[in-house]
Amino acid sequence: MSSEILDQMSAIVGGKNVITDADAMVPYLKEWRDLFRGKAQAIVRPGSTEEVVALVKLAAATGTTLVPQGGNTGLVGGQIPVAEGREIILSLQRMDKIRAVDPDSDTMTVEAGLTLQKAQEAAEAAGRLFPLSLASEGSCTIGGNLSTNAGGTAVLAYGNARELCMGLEVVLADGRVWNGLRQLRKDNTGYDLKNLFIGAEGTLGIITAAVLKLFPLPAARATAFLAVPSPDEALALLNAAKAGAGGTLTTFEILSRTGLDFVLRHASGARDPLSESSPWYVLMEVCAQSATGLDEAVEAFLGEALEKGLVTDAALAGSLNQRNDFWKLREMLSEVQTYEGGSIKHDVSVPLHAVPAFIARASEAVLAMVPGCRPVPFGHMGDGNIHFNVSQPVGADKQAFIGRWSEVNQAVHAIVSEMHGSISAEHGIGRLKRDLLPGVKDPVELALMKTLKATLDPQGILNPGAVV
Amino acid sequence: MSSEILDQMSAIVGGKNVITDADAMVPYLKEWRDLFRGKAQAIVRPGSTEEVVALVKLAAATGTTLVPQGGNTGLVGGQIPVAEGREIILSLQRMDKIRAVDPDSDTMTVEAGLTLQKAQEAAEAAGRLFPLSLASEGSCTIGGNLSTNAGGTAVLAYGNARELCMGLEVVLADGRVWNGLRQLRKDNTGYDLKNLFIGAEGTLGIITAAVLKLFPLPAARATAFLAVPSPDEALALLNAAKAGAGGTLTTFEILSRTGLDFVLRHASGARDPLSESSPWYVLMEVCAQSATGLDEAVEAFLGEALEKGLVTDAALAGSLNQRNDFWKLREMLSEVQTYEGGSIKHDVSVPLHAVPAFIARASEAVLAMVPGCRPVPFGHMGDGNIHFNVSQPVGADKQAFIGRWSEVNQAVHAIVSEMHGSISAEHGIGRLKRDLLPGVKDPVELALMKTLKATLDPQGILNPGAVV
Repeated sequence: MSSEILDQMSAIVGGKNVITDADAMVPYLKEWRDLFRGKAQAIVRPGSTEEVVALVKLAAATGTTLVPQGGNTGLVGGQIPVAEGREIILSLQRMDKIRAVDPDSDTMTVEAGLTLQKAQEAAEAAGRLFPLSLASEGSCTIGGNLSTNAGGTAVLAYGNARELCMGLEVVLADGRVWNGLRQLRKDNTGYDLKNLFIGAEGTLGIITAAVLKLFPLPAARATAFLAVPSPDEALALLNAAKAGAGGTLTTFEILSRTGLDFVLRHASGARDPLSESSPWYVLMEVCAQSATGLDEAVEAFLGEALEKGLVTDAALAGSLNQRNDFWKLREMLSEVQTYEGGSIKHDVSVPLHAVPAFIARASEAVLAMVPGCRPVPFGHMGDGNIHFNVSQPVGADKQAFIGRWSEVNQAVHAIVSEMHGSISAEHGIGRLKRDLLPGVKDPVELALMKTLKATLDPQGILNPGAVV
Repeated sequence: MSSEILDQMSAIVGGKNVITDADAMVPYLKEWRDLFRGKAQAIVRPGSTEEVVALVKLAAATGTTLVPQGGNTGLVGGQIPVAEGREIILSLQRMDKIRAVDPDSDTMTVEAGLTLQKAQEAAEAAGRLFPLSLASEGSCTIGGNLSTNAGGTAVLAYGNARELCMGLEVVLADGRVWNGLRQLRKDNTGYDLKNLFIGAEGTLGIITAAVLKLFPLPAARATAFLAVPSPDEALALLNAAKAGAGGTLTTFEILSRTGLDFVLRHASGARDPLSESSPWYVLMEVCAQSATGLDEAVEAFLGEALEKGLVTDAALAGSLNQRNDFWKLREMLSEVQTYEGGSIKHDVSVPLHAVPAFIARASEAVLAMVPGCRPVPFGHMGDGNIHFNVSQPVGADKQAFIGRWSEVNQAVHAIVSEMHGSISAEHGIGRLKRDLLPGVKDPVELALMKTLKATLDPQGILNPGAVV
């Protein structure tokens, strides 16, 4: 990297928005779980689409490689260069404007660097819901959410980030701008370009702004913490709840007793809402656009589920505090695993019908490989998306256990593949899972992906080393 | 076209599945409204994906151009070659198998040639809803629905065909098969290929099978025919209904008094559900996943709407017969226009907030151009999608009026463009609207579309002359 290019970048974004100081670069280069540190020549922080255009044109002219970054909360290293350190990180954080909120059209146009939480707040200020919801919502950004097609806890009713986006503004690899900021619920005038850039992790273009879909705020909400005998009953309960829980099923999360025990042991203030222990639990939420009658309908539904044996015990949140307590049991599940030693993680999905069999087979497989290990499957059962995490055996050596990461991954992913599932349901591919793709993807699909990459970024200057 | 190629095609699909007789070709070449007749060398009817592969490989080797066709119900000529007649129509109608129905996963895997109605029936037989619903559902096919990203009357709650598809099997222009028949609600392992082929009208690949999303059957349904003072009140009513009509708003269709008069005049058995005339009407349907309480909730909602003046009169269907009568008023709207002479049609969408202004401005514009003409705007207001049709002045010369088609189109589309709308909300581009694209599309977008076409079909053998 010649300092001449950095000088030219400074001329575009202003000197203080080109960071080369090693300490100042750390927040952009450090993986947030501290799994690794990346390497880059500089962090460049454009403040407008025009500045992104100028930077990309400069990069294209000089063969400089760019890694777009939002809130640096990604879980697969898509946002952090790790190779020779020749890359420039293009941080979109300064582009955080809300360009327009249009409640009559149920849309909001925002820039890529806006945090998800601020987007949620802007929607709520206009009397609307922006339903995307993730653990990292305070720092992750809309551009990152879209580039990774983020999931979260409201996918069951509202869809992934992909489904929540109506239009995009994208700076292409040659510096042209595609202005696709449409507010249209229907538009059949040609190929769907939007979905090509969503989920592409910044490898096909740089998302600079987006039109987001808004929804009415729910008029009523019922949250239940349920004991279920096994994932089989959880699946039957899921189907029954979609058909007749009395409103829209917005959340259906599964957790095992092992997971709940971890939370009760390590999360301050956490307590079991039910008096007796159960091997499995479901956190279920139902929303309605009618202020009255929901609790009664959900109670009637749960009464039937108890009679049928789908549920063995149930607690319905009677207050907002109680609701928050139920949610906390689910939300703390990721964090508390760190207090139980090493944890080998998977973010997989299978067809809904296969979730119980997957949990059983994967648990059996990891227990055979590492006797005494503790499977902690949990997550978005309503989407067929299980975070199949495996905690080390009690008292085992953490590093030795973590050393078996890829071996355990392979065994679990083999079962996923056999069940026609996905080895990355919501986190993406980034750099950490890239080398797994050839093992699980249809070769024709992988070839098509490479063809698209070569077509849209022929010089390979956008996020090299990620995805393909 | 050498007869040698047809012989080879006969060897692939069997002689009786290669149609060259002029009369026998008519059903495949005749536009269903009899707007025009196409020209082709032959109709070839493969019965399996393997046969499609063999045909495409042969076409690629010989430079033969193929036009994929489903039920031949398209409205923009995407399915009918019109140029020199060198094309082969590849009819997918024989590929009509239901490969699998998986109610536990809420999915169904079907072949491209299955009619929409048969797909709906298969879902219902499994206790599920496949919500796509169109006037032509008895003959249109799933492959055509997906290739045109079909809309219809349930988009408001369930989305377009695009949103109702989880995975595809596609034969590429070089004969490779992309097997993307995934049943996964979440899969972030690379670029979104599925949405590239959906809505591409057979120009990028040939869809041979699809995984469709299923939903629970509604437990209750309330259908109301409402008098509203103007599209402004209709918009306010739409927003209020989304927020609190007591269930999920599944239909919100607008029609004018002119349109209703046409129906009452020409559709046998049609009658006005309301005692007094109103300039505008809304057909609204609300569904719920709870068997009780919906009618009461909708009644309460409509009571408030009456008080606020959003609605001036309301009829709530008290029986299935009455519901069908209400729907008939909406469904007959297209057909009855033919009895009023010439009709110039538009299938446009604008952001929801702009619907009232669009209807006012477009009506004013066409009345200024053709004094005495009768605008009949109607359609999917909940999606911002208005079928802005214009009937000729009473007693005017039909051909002279129809002769002004493109002039009227231009004026209406100019207003649509100014409002950042779409000139083809749900029907697609096909051959009839292709030449309009350069006038309304961002040049960067059009260039990207051409790049993708050149990349995925470099020889231009798939549906040449359509879309790009």
